[in-house]
Amino acid sequence: MKAVNASTTQLKQDLEKLKKNYEEYQKKGLNLNISRGLPCKEQLDLNGEMFHVLDEDNYMAEDGTDCRNYGVMYGLPECTRLFSQLLDIPEENIVLGGESSLNLMYDQFLRYYAFGTLGEKPWSDQAKEHELKWLCPVPGYDCHFNLTEALGFRMINIPLLSTGPDMDMVEKLVANDPAIKGIWCVPQYSNPTGVVYSDETVERLAKMKTAAPDFRIFWDNAYAVHHLYKENIVKDIFKAAKPYGTEDRILYFFSTAKITFAGSGVCLMASGDGTIEETRRLLKLQIFSHDKLNQLRHVKYLKTPENIRNHMKEVAAVLRPRFDLVDRLLTEKRLYEDVYTWFKPDGGYFITVDSYEGCAKKILEMTENAGVKVATAASTYPYHYDPNDSNIRLAPTYPPMEELEEAIKLFCICANIAAIEKVLAERGV
Amino acid sequence: MKAVNASTTQLKQDLEKLKKNYEEYQKKGLNLNISRGLPCKEQLDLNGEMFHVLDEDNYMAEDGTDCRNYGVMYGLPECTRLFSQLLDIPEENIVLGGESSLNLMYDQFLRYYAFGTLGEKPWSDQAKEHELKWLCPVPGYDCHFNLTEALGFRMINIPLLSTGPDMDMVEKLVANDPAIKGIWCVPQYSNPTGVVYSDETVERLAKMKTAAPDFRIFWDNAYAVHHLYKENIVKDIFKAAKPYGTEDRILYFFSTAKITFAGSGVCLMASGDGTIEETRRLLKLQIFSHDKLNQLRHVKYLKTPENIRNHMKEVAAVLRPRFDLVDRLLTEKRLYEDVYTWFKPDGGYFITVDSYEGCAKKILEMTENAGVKVATAASTYPYHYDPNDSNIRLAPTYPPMEELEEAIKLFCICANIAAIEKVLAERGV
Repeated sequence: MKAVNASTTQLKQDLEKLKKNYEEYQKKGLNLNISRGLPCKEQLDLNGEMFHVLDEDNYMAEDGTDCRNYGVMYGLPECTRLFSQLLDIPEENIVLGGESSLNLMYDQFLRYYAFGTLGEKPWSDQAKEHELKWLCPVPGYDCHFNLTEALGFRMINIPLLSTGPDMDMVEKLVANDPAIKGIWCVPQYSNPTGVVYSDETVERLAKMKTAAPDFRIFWDNAYAVHHLYKENIVKDIFKAAKPYGTEDRILYFFSTAKITFAGSGVCLMASGDGTIEETRRLLKLQIFSHDKLNQLRHVKYLKTPENIRNHMKEVAAVLRPRFDLVDRLLTEKRLYEDVYTWFKPDGGYFITVDSYEGCAKKILEMTENAGVKVATAASTYPYHYDPNDSNIRLAPTYPPMEELEEAIKLFCICANIAAIEKVLAERGV
Repeated sequence: MKAVNASTTQLKQDLEKLKKNYEEYQKKGLNLNISRGLPCKEQLDLNGEMFHVLDEDNYMAEDGTDCRNYGVMYGLPECTRLFSQLLDIPEENIVLGGESSLNLMYDQFLRYYAFGTLGEKPWSDQAKEHELKWLCPVPGYDCHFNLTEALGFRMINIPLLSTGPDMDMVEKLVANDPAIKGIWCVPQYSNPTGVVYSDETVERLAKMKTAAPDFRIFWDNAYAVHHLYKENIVKDIFKAAKPYGTEDRILYFFSTAKITFAGSGVCLMASGDGTIEETRRLLKLQIFSHDKLNQLRHVKYLKTPENIRNHMKEVAAVLRPRFDLVDRLLTEKRLYEDVYTWFKPDGGYFITVDSYEGCAKKILEMTENAGVKVATAASTYPYHYDPNDSNIRLAPTYPPMEELEEAIKLFCICANIAAIEKVLAERGV
């Protein structure tokens, strides 16, 4: 049943009970923060062996390169090969980065901004002539939006459907407006909704005509091997692009941040031949080599694609109970079906809730007033503006189970209260 | 005696002998490359303990932070503190970077280019109005020049004297031209000449009036603790800047690349309060944290400033015989005092030779034709154009002693030949 169909008397009764529950929570003096998408201690503990794979007799690459020294600018060949096999991308289309794929995205974006790409003018130049724009599937990832905002791109919201970005809208926009320079995508277990782009969406992104010759798809495949319940793998966009020759449009990012040690992983960018050649040339301005010892450490620890997949099964075993718990509590504690809706993803790091319209800020304020930071309001929308004030990203991966349980129970109480109060207010009660 | 004062007969005799020597070298079938300023195996071997300071029971920062996870964007406090004590720069004026200080310089440069600084317009905007310029003490470091060239700055050569850049020239230029946005400096054991800027030079750089409010000194103190013969430490530029309030003008870079493992070190940028606040704010667009495990590894291995200084004494003991050898060979093998001159530095990584004018390219061609890459011609000058065609950077740190000896002997033969041929040609012989 929906709250909008419940009697006012019933809703008032519900509210009274809920408010008592809320007051009890306030008295507990909680001080929790479940807002961050971090790996938990148990996940990190799986990687203890990583501390021991290198030592004073083990620092050589397979070709005899001393990894303690400078050199090998684009990444250790065996490390590139491992990811090439894992992701089915040719080695020559991969450049390894350091510990952060966000940093790689930032670098690539700033290259376009300062240097332009493949004969096109730098975006900083183009921005003098007319305002540049960027497509942002929403809800999405705040770190993406922050970068395009800081560089002055006007961000255009694109609804993220269960199949991925609304492709009718995307195709129409990019076909006609050369000021639209790109789109942010998290194609598999999307941050935050968890959807996997459909084959058709991938195909249309690869195929579509763009008015801007330097239109770019930032393909942040952060959760490529991060399955929880089943392997729901997004279609290979490079293979989709091949018939259309649009490989240089795609900037594919991946990292081991949530496979090995977050913040001490290895990341990569893959793209078409032209883009990779250009990136390698510009990389010389920046660095002699990323941390090869860490690349070697990853190769010696992760060993093979199969071993990585097995490791991710262990990670899933750690994470699944957390996702189960959140899903169960969201189911059990919801008083009416219009109080909120959510999506239980096949993998990734988040569960997204859509509250009753106009209630998200209120809910998050309430949880904070009871000592629990659940999320940052509207952080999943460009300019931190959620037009429906309803999207909330839950991050179940980090907190201990007891804390997660406390936090989600409180969240459900607040979500019920906010929705019912809103319904009553709509009735003028 | 000088070649220009020797008899033609004598010079012809010399030349005949030298050419025989050169031919003998050609027959050896050498294949050496001494052009790179890399640490040698023995220097790297000093750090074996680094592989063992972290393990599955040792990954916590002193405040209990799990360094295996995300977070601590500006660097681990104990790592910042260690460098703060070593360099006598307040912790709050330091931001830690990753494995490459060149990358930090690139990042900072691109921030100014894309975002501007402290209320001034981005350099990319200013460049639309008039050509921007940059001061380049010469000879200098090619990686510096490559960046300013790629971003379209017109580079102005500033003679590097034994006291540092020609400050009369610098002061006059920056006082009058708001298009001059900065200067590259390697103030201590300069790359490549090895000079240490005088106190007066540092004082004048800190004090000088600049027409551009966003004029910046990129202070690449790469060799701050890299003494070889004596501790010739450059004056503290932040202390010099304090009375004039110009701290934000200074971007101080340092790294452990040549202290621990090259390419797997930790680096930092230090500046005034305003710049650091701005950098920290913009860093959020880019990364959650640099590799904290590597920062912790450095703290646990390097421990104290005193320990770092002692470690650098061990490094110096490895490197000194190489510098002694080069200095001895350059002395013994030079037939006339105008064939070349050089400077034996108190520390750093290079010895710079100035050949007889107009001979550098020829000399390097000759060594390459005998199988030895000594250096890249004119790489120490902007646009790879050395107006005197005479400056050559020797990098004694990497090759084994025998290879270094072979290479330098060959170099001396070639330098003598080129000079004598030039003198004879000048006589019309």
